[in-house]
Amino acid sequence: MNFASDNTAGCAPDIMAALARANAGPAGAYGNDAATKRLTGHFSELFETEVQVFPVATGTAANSLSLSTLVPPYGGVICLDQAHIHEDECGAPEFFSGGARIFNVPGKRGKLDAADVERVVKLNSAANFHRMQPAAVSVTQLGEGGELYSPDEIGAIGEAAKRHGLGLHMDGARFANAVAGINCRPADVTWRAGVDILSFGATKNGAWAAEAIVVFKPELARSLLYRRQRAGHTFSKMRFLSVQLEAYLAQDLWLRNARHANGMMSRIAEALVELPDVRLLDRPRGNLTFVNLPVYLVEPLAKAGFVFYHWGNANYHTARLVTAFNTELGQVKKFVSILRKHSRGRKPPFAMDFLPRP
Amino acid sequence: MNFASDNTAGCAPDIMAALARANAGPAGAYGNDAATKRLTGHFSELFETEVQVFPVATGTAANSLSLSTLVPPYGGVICLDQAHIHEDECGAPEFFSGGARIFNVPGKRGKLDAADVERVVKLNSAANFHRMQPAAVSVTQLGEGGELYSPDEIGAIGEAAKRHGLGLHMDGARFANAVAGINCRPADVTWRAGVDILSFGATKNGAWAAEAIVVFKPELARSLLYRRQRAGHTFSKMRFLSVQLEAYLAQDLWLRNARHANGMMSRIAEALVELPDVRLLDRPRGNLTFVNLPVYLVEPLAKAGFVFYHWGNANYHTARLVTAFNTELGQVKKFVSILRKHSRGRKPPFAMDFLPRP
Amino acid sequence: MNFASDNTAGCAPDIMAALARANAGPAGAYGNDAATKRLTGHFSELFETEVQVFPVATGTAANSLSLSTLVPPYGGVICLDQAHIHEDECGAPEFFSGGARIFNVPGKRGKLDAADVERVVKLNSAANFHRMQPAAVSVTQLGEGGELYSPDEIGAIGEAAKRHGLGLHMDGARFANAVAGINCRPADVTWRAGVDILSFGATKNGAWAAEAIVVFKPELARSLLYRRQRAGHTFSKMRFLSVQLEAYLAQDLWLRNARHANGMMSRIAEALVELPDVRLLDRPRGNLTFVNLPVYLVEPLAKAGFVFYHWGNANYHTARLVTAFNTELGQVKKFVSILRKHSRGRKPPFAMDFLPRP
Amino acid sequence: MNFASDNTAGCAPDIMAALARANAGPAGAYGNDAATKRLTGHFSELFETEVQVFPVATGTAANSLSLSTLVPPYGGVICLDQAHIHEDECGAPEFFSGGARIFNVPGKRGKLDAADVERVVKLNSAANFHRMQPAAVSVTQLGEGGELYSPDEIGAIGEAAKRHGLGLHMDGARFANAVAGINCRPADVTWRAGVDILSFGATKNGAWAAEAIVVFKPELARSLLYRRQRAGHTFSKMRFLSVQLEAYLAQDLWLRNARHANGMMSRIAEALVELPDVRLLDRPRGNLTFVNLPVYLVEPLAKAGFVFYHWGNANYHTARLVTAFNTELGQVKKFVSILRKHSRGRKPPFAMDFLPRP
Repeated sequence: MNFASDNTAGCAPDIMAALARANAGPAGAYGNDAATKRLTGHFSELFETEVQVFPVATGTAANSLSLSTLVPPYGGVICLDQAHIHEDECGAPEFFSGGARIFNVPGKRGKLDAADVERVVKLNSAANFHRMQPAAVSVTQLGEGGELYSPDEIGAIGEAAKRHGLGLHMDGARFANAVAGINCRPADVTWRAGVDILSFGATKNGAWAAEAIVVFKPELARSLLYRRQRAGHTFSKMRFLSVQLEAYLAQDLWLRNARHANGMMSRIAEALVELPDVRLLDRPRGNLTFVNLPVYLVEPLAKAGFVFYHWGNANYHTARLVTAFNTELGQVKKFVSILRKHSRGRKPPFAMDFLPRP
Repeated sequence: MNFASDNTAGCAPDIMAALARANAGPAGAYGNDAATKRLTGHFSELFETEVQVFPVATGTAANSLSLSTLVPPYGGVICLDQAHIHEDECGAPEFFSGGARIFNVPGKRGKLDAADVERVVKLNSAANFHRMQPAAVSVTQLGEGGELYSPDEIGAIGEAAKRHGLGLHMDGARFANAVAGINCRPADVTWRAGVDILSFGATKNGAWAAEAIVVFKPELARSLLYRRQRAGHTFSKMRFLSVQLEAYLAQDLWLRNARHANGMMSRIAEALVELPDVRLLDRPRGNLTFVNLPVYLVEPLAKAGFVFYHWGNANYHTARLVTAFNTELGQVKKFVSILRKHSRGRKPPFAMDFLPRP
Repeated sequence: MNFASDNTAGCAPDIMAALARANAGPAGAYGNDAATKRLTGHFSELFETEVQVFPVATGTAANSLSLSTLVPPYGGVICLDQAHIHEDECGAPEFFSGGARIFNVPGKRGKLDAADVERVVKLNSAANFHRMQPAAVSVTQLGEGGELYSPDEIGAIGEAAKRHGLGLHMDGARFANAVAGINCRPADVTWRAGVDILSFGATKNGAWAAEAIVVFKPELARSLLYRRQRAGHTFSKMRFLSVQLEAYLAQDLWLRNARHANGMMSRIAEALVELPDVRLLDRPRGNLTFVNLPVYLVEPLAKAGFVFYHWGNANYHTARLVTAFNTELGQVKKFVSILRKHSRGRKPPFAMDFLPRP
Repeated sequence: MNFASDNTAGCAPDIMAALARANAGPAGAYGNDAATKRLTGHFSELFETEVQVFPVATGTAANSLSLSTLVPPYGGVICLDQAHIHEDECGAPEFFSGGARIFNVPGKRGKLDAADVERVVKLNSAANFHRMQPAAVSVTQLGEGGELYSPDEIGAIGEAAKRHGLGLHMDGARFANAVAGINCRPADVTWRAGVDILSFGATKNGAWAAEAIVVFKPELARSLLYRRQRAGHTFSKMRFLSVQLEAYLAQDLWLRNARHANGMMSRIAEALVELPDVRLLDRPRGNLTFVNLPVYLVEPLAKAGFVFYHWGNANYHTARLVTAFNTELGQVKKFVSILRKHSRGRKPPFAMDFLPRP
């Protein structure tokens, strides 16, 4: 009964089976195998355009390698303060770019927009060589707070980026949940909206450890073979990465898994909005949300064995809830029933504003 | 029938089974799981001393992270010209160290020794700040040409390193084959001989993708959590790395696999030394060797479907033969029988000197 | 008539004379000359403790080399948003540290304090390897807005830094103006208050191009010879740097120059506080201040040929005024007389809040 | 009486005078001054083509910044083993490029040639992503041993470089001595022969501290403003760098100085070739040469106060002799007369082969 992270789940059965199948017989090393070679075709079909694909094992590798193709060492990446690349990767973007800076947009929850891009660019003009030069924008889809960027929203950011010669990277650690939440074609929120390079996540949604760097702008792919190798991210038995991705795409497993996770979160949300002593921050359309709960609701959940991140004061907590491809309906029902049981049926006598994670 | 690389083999059944078992139920992310926590104990027992262990997925990651704890950006690593860190990692040591240099000892086949260390140190004295400063030595065990370093040989290098304040790293991509070949305790060729940090390889010897950075000098471990994270080498579902290593050590699978591979190579070697038109460069004690063969022996092997690296001239080729944990005796017998059948029973009328790989 | 920058001034006559003297006869290269060797003594006397000194030619070199001794590549430097190392060095701290981050404290004018240090450290705890690790604090003395840190204020920051194992760097581009403004001993605002390494500026205060990295913590000096060389900051004819510093210290030229500049700024300030339509942001104690002026005062100054940075709206501008070692009293008097002449003798009918520099 | 280095000499009187003149009155900071702005014109005229110019203070800065525009972090620079960028800059090329490698051509005295380039490129093919990728060639003109590359020799290297998509950098620390020695137009040994970017040295030939990065390929200049700033090599009072370069070019001071130094070296060489117990390695055409001398000739020179680098055995030494713009004829005559006086007038009874510098 774990709503803490989609990283605590294991691996989807179809992917496990593909790994077992890939173990029969030898295969060329370092990507010189049949499964890896098929990936370009699979992803080009999925995105309805010719793409290049580089499988890696972690989201940080995907993000940092992607950004390193866009940003010179004297450049910078515009993103939200709470972006994974800013908060959680211990300086990987700085490392892979050779010293670039993250221009984090502080004090803002939710989504980056074109005005943020314009503001950072204006403050760091190319005419002023004392300033690091904005070179890329990075958006997270599904957002860090569970937000969805619509194709138009990405498109507006993409236009601002192009206007100033910046590349556009998408951190798609939960890309499947986003596409399932919007119900759009993958191309609509990526290259058609101006995305140059995508970290296409699979690990959080049922793979063991597999992400794909999907390159929409061919010239960005040129350096990636070398950059991946020098970062130690070229697997000798790469087929084991590639078959995970292949199984993840087959029969739309990626979307089926995401729809399940999103559906479980919707179930939770539907129940929560009806409780007056709970404050849901947004209507979740993906598999992640933040919610404010009085302490008298947090405690029985914890006692019942539910694990999730929460922080707060003597009155209430802000909780981060995440569902996964294998969250069981029974868990959700139990979670909801505990809340209903302990709800006092009225607004609590204190304001419950979002509390930033400590 | 593949003698090209131990990377083309798949995964040992015990390891595959451990992966499947690890998939049952949730586990803490980023190393906060039971299997990862057990690794310190397993490796400390194996090495008969308290060690710290950092699982990663590739040998390049293990080598480069290890070296980055030993070498400042103005420093250098002494190793043989043909070392993997010099020839095959596209600059990973330079990347992870922030610009250090590889002081490769050129023009030498075989093994590094203490005199090499002394020579490089003398040429780049600490008093001369124009020169990059030697800061570490890296030896490969099993060597790039299949050589074994005895505990005494490592010890002599270790003493030279300590004399000049250099760290000693061991690239143990084929550490199991070496320990099996020497028939020593793992401690004897590592920390007891002066090794500070070890890339303990499992991938080439039956894992899917798993290496362990084993740290013998506690202060080197301090930065590794951060360095691994910023390099994108901290797996979110780390248990899947850790259980590979756990299964690899259980019931001495690592040694059993290595003994098998070494034994298969011995079989090949025993047959080869009896053929006067074949020149074996060294008596192999691991799972890797180089051999010179007249073209009239290379061709029938290729025709029979044997895959291995070879290069040469109109008369003869130098071939690199590698056996693996799953090399079948039948393959070896067939290989040998083809050679016997086509041997002309006398020395060829041309010298067969070792040809450097093109 | 230039109040734009202390970088637009030339070189003090005593320093020019020292350069000319140094040109007589050969001298050892790369610091192996008599003047360079004397610097350690000069600076140790000045700071009343044994220090080590590394002359370089730019403030950015001094700052970045200093920080690179304190901060690992996965570390960070805590400083104010408007610090030179954050705003004006195009990523030099990131470059020299190999990818560290600047933890800039945003939205705050004036001075960093111990609470800022505590807050950033708390947000990025060592237990959380996903976060870059604060490793140093950098304070600017004279501050970016002309502020002075008292010995006690530096001491409080120094204590917070030590409490968390952080190094303390001081960017002393205008160190002379600060010491003259506080009227303290140089040791009081540096090592006695916890400063580990100092960028001791001379260029802005009468040198041609000379800064000294002054190291109070001996172990930090060990890597500097190598770091300076690999950054191209070791001058072959280093005596020409060193004699500037020597002449700068001789007969307290550094303090005399600073007192002159500070005195000229005081003169300006005394006149400004008497004008009701001018708003001085702080009482300047150094050679730098910010002031709000109605447009009807800005225009006649510009017409009279006064050059200084200013920005604003249709009603008023915020101006940055800087005096230098060679600012002439006549200039100051003329400046003041123009303001007096055009002052309307009453508060303007609009608020004049500080406007951030565009 | 110093033949040790052209770095031990001071500054030419014309350059000192220009520095003094530049000190009258304020000037824009960071290159925004009249002298700096004039440099583009001066150098474009000198090289008979539109160039861009970036003044810096050291040769290492010029070399490393130049190379950083040509070489990605996974790339490499082909040069001779004894190149300054390989032997003497403590890893500056690695630092500025973000971790690139120097592909030093070992075991070769004298000049790099096109075959060296071809060989290194072949060994590190672009198809092999395990290898760092050759991206530039760097030649030193005047060579490290005093050699001159003719326009045709540079041209052949330039063609090989272009054939493989490599950039061509020239380390012109002694460019003036080379042009004077060849007696060619500056363009003939630079862009007309395929050089993309030049470190144009002035420091060794009479400047105080001034080098110009001269960019022949406009796209390489784009990043240099930022790269120079982040390396701390943008001088705030840049006019003092620029007027050195301006005075250096005025009335062909650079060539006059170089011709003088070369002429002094010729005088020495003419005397040496007549002494049977001296072995001159090459007929010097620049201001630098290596010579073998019996110990019985070395000793009286040392006793007479001559300073130069020499190393050797009980019988003879190899000496490196360098003349400078201000070497006096009297010194040369005295040097020669001592040699003549102590010469034994016959070949010594031992071979005098070139001894590598220890």
